[in-house]
Amino acid sequence: MRKLKIFLLLPALVICFTSVNAQKAIYLDENQPIEKRIEHALSLMTVDEKVALCHAQSTFTSAGVPRLGIPYLKMSDGPHGIRAEGNWDGWKNADWTIDSCLAFPALTCLAATFNPQMSLLYGRSIGEEARYREKNVLLGPGVNIYRTPLNGRNFEYMGEDPFLASIMVVPYITGVQENGVAACLKHYAFNNQEKNRFFVDVDMSDRAMREIYLPAFHAGVTKAKVWSVMGAYNLFRGQYCNQNDLLLNKILKTEWKFDGAVISDWGGVHGSKQAIEHGLDIEMGTGTDGLSSGAKNVYDYYYMANPYKKMLANGEASVATLNDKVRRILRLMYRTSMNNDKPYGSFVSEAHSKAAKQIAEEGIVLLKNQNSILPLNLNGIKKIAVIGENATRSLTIGGGSSGLKVKYEISPLKGIQNRFGSQAQINYQMGYAAGETAYHVNDEFPSKLNADSLRKEAIKLAAESDLVIFVGGLNKNSFQDSEDADRKTMDLPYNQNLLVAEIAKVNKKVVVVLISGNAITMPWLNQASAVVQSWYLGSESGNAIASILSGDVNPSGKLPFTFPKQLSDNGAHSFGEISYPGVNLKQYYKDDILVGYRWHDTKKIAPQFEFGYGLSYTTFSYKDLKVSKTDEKNFTATFTVTNTGKVYGAEVSQLYVKKVGTSIVRAEKELKGFDKIFLKPGESKIVSINIDAEAFRYYNESIKNWDSEKGKYELLIGGSSRQIFLKEAIII
Amino acid sequence: MRKLKIFLLLPALVICFTSVNAQKAIYLDENQPIEKRIEHALSLMTVDEKVALCHAQSTFTSAGVPRLGIPYLKMSDGPHGIRAEGNWDGWKNADWTIDSCLAFPALTCLAATFNPQMSLLYGRSIGEEARYREKNVLLGPGVNIYRTPLNGRNFEYMGEDPFLASIMVVPYITGVQENGVAACLKHYAFNNQEKNRFFVDVDMSDRAMREIYLPAFHAGVTKAKVWSVMGAYNLFRGQYCNQNDLLLNKILKTEWKFDGAVISDWGGVHGSKQAIEHGLDIEMGTGTDGLSSGAKNVYDYYYMANPYKKMLANGEASVATLNDKVRRILRLMYRTSMNNDKPYGSFVSEAHSKAAKQIAEEGIVLLKNQNSILPLNLNGIKKIAVIGENATRSLTIGGGSSGLKVKYEISPLKGIQNRFGSQAQINYQMGYAAGETAYHVNDEFPSKLNADSLRKEAIKLAAESDLVIFVGGLNKNSFQDSEDADRKTMDLPYNQNLLVAEIAKVNKKVVVVLISGNAITMPWLNQASAVVQSWYLGSESGNAIASILSGDVNPSGKLPFTFPKQLSDNGAHSFGEISYPGVNLKQYYKDDILVGYRWHDTKKIAPQFEFGYGLSYTTFSYKDLKVSKTDEKNFTATFTVTNTGKVYGAEVSQLYVKKVGTSIVRAEKELKGFDKIFLKPGESKIVSINIDAEAFRYYNESIKNWDSEKGKYELLIGGSSRQIFLKEAIII
Repeated sequence: MRKLKIFLLLPALVICFTSVNAQKAIYLDENQPIEKRIEHALSLMTVDEKVALCHAQSTFTSAGVPRLGIPYLKMSDGPHGIRAEGNWDGWKNADWTIDSCLAFPALTCLAATFNPQMSLLYGRSIGEEARYREKNVLLGPGVNIYRTPLNGRNFEYMGEDPFLASIMVVPYITGVQENGVAACLKHYAFNNQEKNRFFVDVDMSDRAMREIYLPAFHAGVTKAKVWSVMGAYNLFRGQYCNQNDLLLNKILKTEWKFDGAVISDWGGVHGSKQAIEHGLDIEMGTGTDGLSSGAKNVYDYYYMANPYKKMLANGEASVATLNDKVRRILRLMYRTSMNNDKPYGSFVSEAHSKAAKQIAEEGIVLLKNQNSILPLNLNGIKKIAVIGENATRSLTIGGGSSGLKVKYEISPLKGIQNRFGSQAQINYQMGYAAGETAYHVNDEFPSKLNADSLRKEAIKLAAESDLVIFVGGLNKNSFQDSEDADRKTMDLPYNQNLLVAEIAKVNKKVVVVLISGNAITMPWLNQASAVVQSWYLGSESGNAIASILSGDVNPSGKLPFTFPKQLSDNGAHSFGEISYPGVNLKQYYKDDILVGYRWHDTKKIAPQFEFGYGLSYTTFSYKDLKVSKTDEKNFTATFTVTNTGKVYGAEVSQLYVKKVGTSIVRAEKELKGFDKIFLKPGESKIVSINIDAEAFRYYNESIKNWDSEKGKYELLIGGSSRQIFLKEAIII
Repeated sequence: MRKLKIFLLLPALVICFTSVNAQKAIYLDENQPIEKRIEHALSLMTVDEKVALCHAQSTFTSAGVPRLGIPYLKMSDGPHGIRAEGNWDGWKNADWTIDSCLAFPALTCLAATFNPQMSLLYGRSIGEEARYREKNVLLGPGVNIYRTPLNGRNFEYMGEDPFLASIMVVPYITGVQENGVAACLKHYAFNNQEKNRFFVDVDMSDRAMREIYLPAFHAGVTKAKVWSVMGAYNLFRGQYCNQNDLLLNKILKTEWKFDGAVISDWGGVHGSKQAIEHGLDIEMGTGTDGLSSGAKNVYDYYYMANPYKKMLANGEASVATLNDKVRRILRLMYRTSMNNDKPYGSFVSEAHSKAAKQIAEEGIVLLKNQNSILPLNLNGIKKIAVIGENATRSLTIGGGSSGLKVKYEISPLKGIQNRFGSQAQINYQMGYAAGETAYHVNDEFPSKLNADSLRKEAIKLAAESDLVIFVGGLNKNSFQDSEDADRKTMDLPYNQNLLVAEIAKVNKKVVVVLISGNAITMPWLNQASAVVQSWYLGSESGNAIASILSGDVNPSGKLPFTFPKQLSDNGAHSFGEISYPGVNLKQYYKDDILVGYRWHDTKKIAPQFEFGYGLSYTTFSYKDLKVSKTDEKNFTATFTVTNTGKVYGAEVSQLYVKKVGTSIVRAEKELKGFDKIFLKPGESKIVSINIDAEAFRYYNESIKNWDSEKGKYELLIGGSSRQIFLKEAIII
């Protein structure tokens, strides 16, 4: 008999009678430094437990260590709102009744605010929503550079300029992470198109990579200290980005000293050895419809699951590498799920609605305003025709993984009715119909309704009305701003061009409101009285649009990407298929550093609307530029901006740097500073923009490092990339 | 134009740039007292938000306040392990892969340990499992009194004696709640049978209620300070228990000063007005298959949802009453979901397995051991026959809401193989088969396999073997220890009596291991060499049984309820159908206070095995009883217990109080103290048991209060309710 068994256990029990917390283990002790807690937890874990941390255990979670009380990680799409709860395995909705979120504007809109405070407000607000929903990792923001207007996922990103994206991404991440929720910076890297995203092998010069495509990621990692990064689907120089030695080990983890966890995009891992050795930490989404295939636990078959264990047992994988992954994942956990000091968050609060509305209002861009038709003056306007499917269509759904189940969504029609309904009669006609389509299905042509009769009804209404507000654009259907497929043309779909042109024939007051995350062609531009670029604005969409149309809020958004006149004017489309979309799944970015306005300016191709462009209901004047050297490496440009119009408004003053005379290829100018200033009518403010040595540098491939050219530079100050009001030369 | 809009928001933004936590609202501030936080939260809530807290929002959750960041409440069955995750609405399993829990022994086993330290270990361990699984409310423990061996749910409770249950329930609750998880004491009250549980209107004397059925609830509320209580399904004196003014308002909340929340049993609410006014706080489970019925949100139609709002609007319900409910629910939240200091818990840890095994080993009761056949001596034993379906059947599933999805379960056969497999050949025959049945379906007769051939094969094996271990009993099928139905007889099902008798004819060494949560008849008792009462032991079942059979652990469990020789010997069954199961859904407990051994002793009906009974592999002697008065109201009984056998073992010394000469009906004796002592061979210990005035009192219906009789009492000391070794008289 084991005589001592009961006897020996008793003293231990007596001790633990005192208090559960009395003898907290180091790894559970909030008063210990995280790194010490990590090492302690690591020392307690078995190899199986370590490997379990490195891959999914369900569609949106990865394992904790149940035995040790370390909670599992809960991840959630997406960057514009907290995705509905899904089943444990697979993509079906779990039919919860409390997961209807607040939809914030898509990130193109945030970029268009040119206001870092809006980015902080955004990050904090969505971070609070994520925290309330008990998410540990928010799968965003996305900062892939807008290279072509065809990219189906541009609406999720922050435009074409690396400086703008680098500034705007930082407060977003900070705001999210203040809630004890990790941001997950994505898609690292070069996922600049959706076409062939799973297969295309991207290449470019080191210089394009460093100057254009990586800076926003670099800022997120080094300035915002983002806690997780998501790899892209595509290959880069022959290796998938989720298992890419250069991108993950060399640049992200070694050069940038990223101390968080790399999470694969869902289904983006393709082999154990590279994933293990090249810097991936958590493998997600490999065959997530697995349970339906009958396997007991498909997650055991992930590249970094049982095969990893086998490699560790064989000596083909090193424990040191495994421990590095586990340390990173534990660090992510200590910052999120195991951070007891985090706030509680909140969900669909009034504050979040206000934030979403304010960001939307600051991001909407007024592109044209002939004869100051806007803000709407309803004197003599008795009947307003609202035309266009996007006036009533839900635009928070669709688009792929960023699609949302929302608590509410104010449609443009509803917003217009609420704002103007008591002053004028509002009538609605659809005008065109996209038809019902599912994600991943081409819906360019299958409208079930009779397109001609819809158009005729709309034109009839337009003719009878005193003013037409056309609300069209793209709609997050596949091929119309949606994941996994690029647009096929830069034109508006569903014959909207014909519709707008015909409306303009019967009514002289046509305000076009475009909803999209991409540039479109505007063959009817001359016939439209006003054009408002409205992004996917989320729950407060209609209210924000009505604020701008009414003048309750003076528009202050600026374009975060160029609107070319035609697709062929875009740099990515100027070098044949090798440059876009790739030939035999190989692609080389021949446009190199000349992306967006850099291309248009350098090649002297006039755009339809340039980067940084956006009208106001007031006017601004610029004067008194003074550039002073503050120290060895820093300059300050000071100038005065005056609101010369009659209403309160905001101006985004932009500073571009131009190298005068260069021995290398350089862009005509590059954005290196901006400031959004709010001015009462007649008010002046002195704007001061600091620029440092980074503003002048370029990436020198021969020395494989940043370099600077001595000589003359011009600092250009203006209200867009082409409205330069002040300039001054300096010598470096 | 709203000129000031952007302008005014800016200063606010600048302020909040500093820190999210800088200006914590009182209700979110951990440094504020809970009561202050409650009042602040209450002051911020709308009526709709308050009402939302008072009813379910899914099958196992009730709402938080998303806008304010107050998280929702997650509840989980059950008292023996954390139930598998289900879908949002309805009863289907959600197919998670990380919700396979550790099953602990059912509470009858815990009660049989007679060891409060085991109860603390149990509460802490299951509390850690609940915490790791992020549950806020654990729906247990159950302390309904064992009144009849037919009650289908006795296995979930703590036996027939109010003193034993009152002592054992407290550390369980304390242990659970140390984890920041609320225990939910159930089923309050008088849910002492499953037959007609939804409809039967129970009544009894106030005295029976106070002396027998309420003390364990009272202890849980006043001593363990339980944070939530669940109402029972049945009615009491014409009102459903979930909306019973006497039980909830008068006794629980006023008399006992319960400050937590009353949660209805699922589907146990039947009307708005009573539920609102009579003390219910959270309504759960009213028509939980609702979403499938097509309603948009069935939870809006709960008695305490939209109808409550309407009554508030009409003035038919008072805001003060609503606020009282909300305060209680918020208090529950601050203690659980909003307690940031709670530990992390752990899940299926080695420590939990050890705890489950130890509790099981201490709870198993050795009922018979002729010629010391146990512990098994394998000299001359070459072939062991294990016979009986329960040797291999999973007994963690079934039984109703306490059914579990377990990480592992060591079957008795597996435990026996592991322990004895290297010393003897172990052969198995099923012997009988219960057939496959679903919960709520009577399976007494439908065995698909041929019962005769199963029995013949088993008898053949028994005849060829040197020793037979029969593992039978009940099995948590409907009518065999399961929710929502009582047993139909006290006999073993599936013809096990015949099987055991026939086995005993062909083999003289028959060890019977019974698995049940109820007493059974034993017509074969004289033929069996040994009888081991094993409860539903959970994951470590087979290991614990093998520990006892082998003598690795010396049995020390004592029966927490009487095993009568026949059903008619039981008090509840001695007064016709009005006493059990009720007539026309009216029931009166005519057995009154004479429940269990109180009945048998008072009526001088010898049981098969008495309350408190259990053998050991060693023997104990008692001597030197001294009773001293420690102060006005307290006595101490001191005596010496000696291990007079050859092996280490534990004895539960029991103190009963007997009134000598009484003018009222009193039980022959009542348990008023016990102590479990662990003794080496030859070792003696002085045991000291304190008893206070409560030990002598009775409930006097004429004064509606506790009262005491003056005169002579005997203190009886022994190893069971009928093995009294020492006694001394005292005068009160």
